[in-house]
Amino acid sequence: MTDKTLVTWHEHRVQRPRGCVIWFTGLSGSGKSTVANCVDELLHQSGEPSFVLDGDNVRHGLNASREILEPTFGSEYAERFGLGFSAIDRQENIRRIGAVAELFCDAGLLTLTAFVSPYRLDRDSVREYVCSRGTKSDFVEVFVDTPLDVCESRDPKGLYKKARTGEIKGFTGIDDPYESPLHPEIKLAGGTDTPENLAQQVVAYLRSIGKLRN
Amino acid sequence: MTDKTLVTWHEHRVQRPRGCVIWFTGLSGSGKSTVANCVDELLHQSGEPSFVLDGDNVRHGLNASREILEPTFGSEYAERFGLGFSAIDRQENIRRIGAVAELFCDAGLLTLTAFVSPYRLDRDSVREYVCSRGTKSDFVEVFVDTPLDVCESRDPKGLYKKARTGEIKGFTGIDDPYESPLHPEIKLAGGTDTPENLAQQVVAYLRSIGKLRN
Repeated sequence: MTDKTLVTWHEHRVQRPRGCVIWFTGLSGSGKSTVANCVDELLHQSGEPSFVLDGDNVRHGLNASREILEPTFGSEYAERFGLGFSAIDRQENIRRIGAVAELFCDAGLLTLTAFVSPYRLDRDSVREYVCSRGTKSDFVEVFVDTPLDVCESRDPKGLYKKARTGEIKGFTGIDDPYESPLHPEIKLAGGTDTPENLAQQVVAYLRSIGKLRN
Repeated sequence: MTDKTLVTWHEHRVQRPRGCVIWFTGLSGSGKSTVANCVDELLHQSGEPSFVLDGDNVRHGLNASREILEPTFGSEYAERFGLGFSAIDRQENIRRIGAVAELFCDAGLLTLTAFVSPYRLDRDSVREYVCSRGTKSDFVEVFVDTPLDVCESRDPKGLYKKARTGEIKGFTGIDDPYESPLHPEIKLAGGTDTPENLAQQVVAYLRSIGKLRN
């Protein structure tokens, strides 16, 4: 064998059309995850490659907390790498999700993310990162604009109740700010229509910018 | 609107057949990335959904170092979250890649990873994590077993030279151990054949365990 066994292939990569990052943002209980999963369903039915990143699939892995890491990795490790709720921990939470969403986009998937992501700066950083690796249309911000009182009346996880009694501190919309997107690509009037109809608006937008194959 | 707008959809998820994590491990210069990209090419040609995670696409995003994070996020942030080369930082590097590979697997992709990943414990942790969310066949360890002298003579990035002169410390194979897999699903005799022929062995294995659709 000679070095020639490597030379021809090194650095060669499959060229795929990029997908897109569809970034849902909104209050807890606004319907982000519900609508994102509904978009995923519609895309899947039409044969589009898609995927949803949300708390359910990153909480125990990518962005595990100290409590989750400690039993397997020990306390020093958990202390160093577990994510908490400080300002920079929340920022890192969003940064990592953005980096992973970009990888999915690079793999050609229509990648739906559903996180409160309350801070404009964090969302804008992700937008910049994703678009810097492709084009401007690779990031679609979807503001699920559901009134606080509607979100609070839904309270699917009982979090607003805990925030109101003070059991949870720094809860977005109660004692921590939610910074609405200034120029989202899509604004959904959450709570005024069914998730399926809201999802159809997202699919229509993706079609209009040429992100659908079928 | 009533709560019914949410009830039917919440927690509903598209069910996809899982893909697979194909974890390449071996010394720097062993040909991991080259063979993984070659497998990716072969899979892509047969219409299989696949993707490669390697240093090229995680170094600036998911697993950014302090140096990469600092200009954008500041020094406190970079210090807290940037990954270095300490034992636990390396472990976290692999843990995150494993978590992301699992997400790709969950999205239905044949996910190829190409990292030295020298420690058995770290690889076994990823195996356990991936398999715990699916089945035993969701993780395929590929040991690219290329002799050190061959890797060192290739030295594509000039790293062995720097390790020998002491400019780089703790370099796998020189002054840090590489722990060979004890029971890899596939062992490739790196340096004895072309990357394409080695890649064909991987594709044949994936076919044999029913991971290919076409």
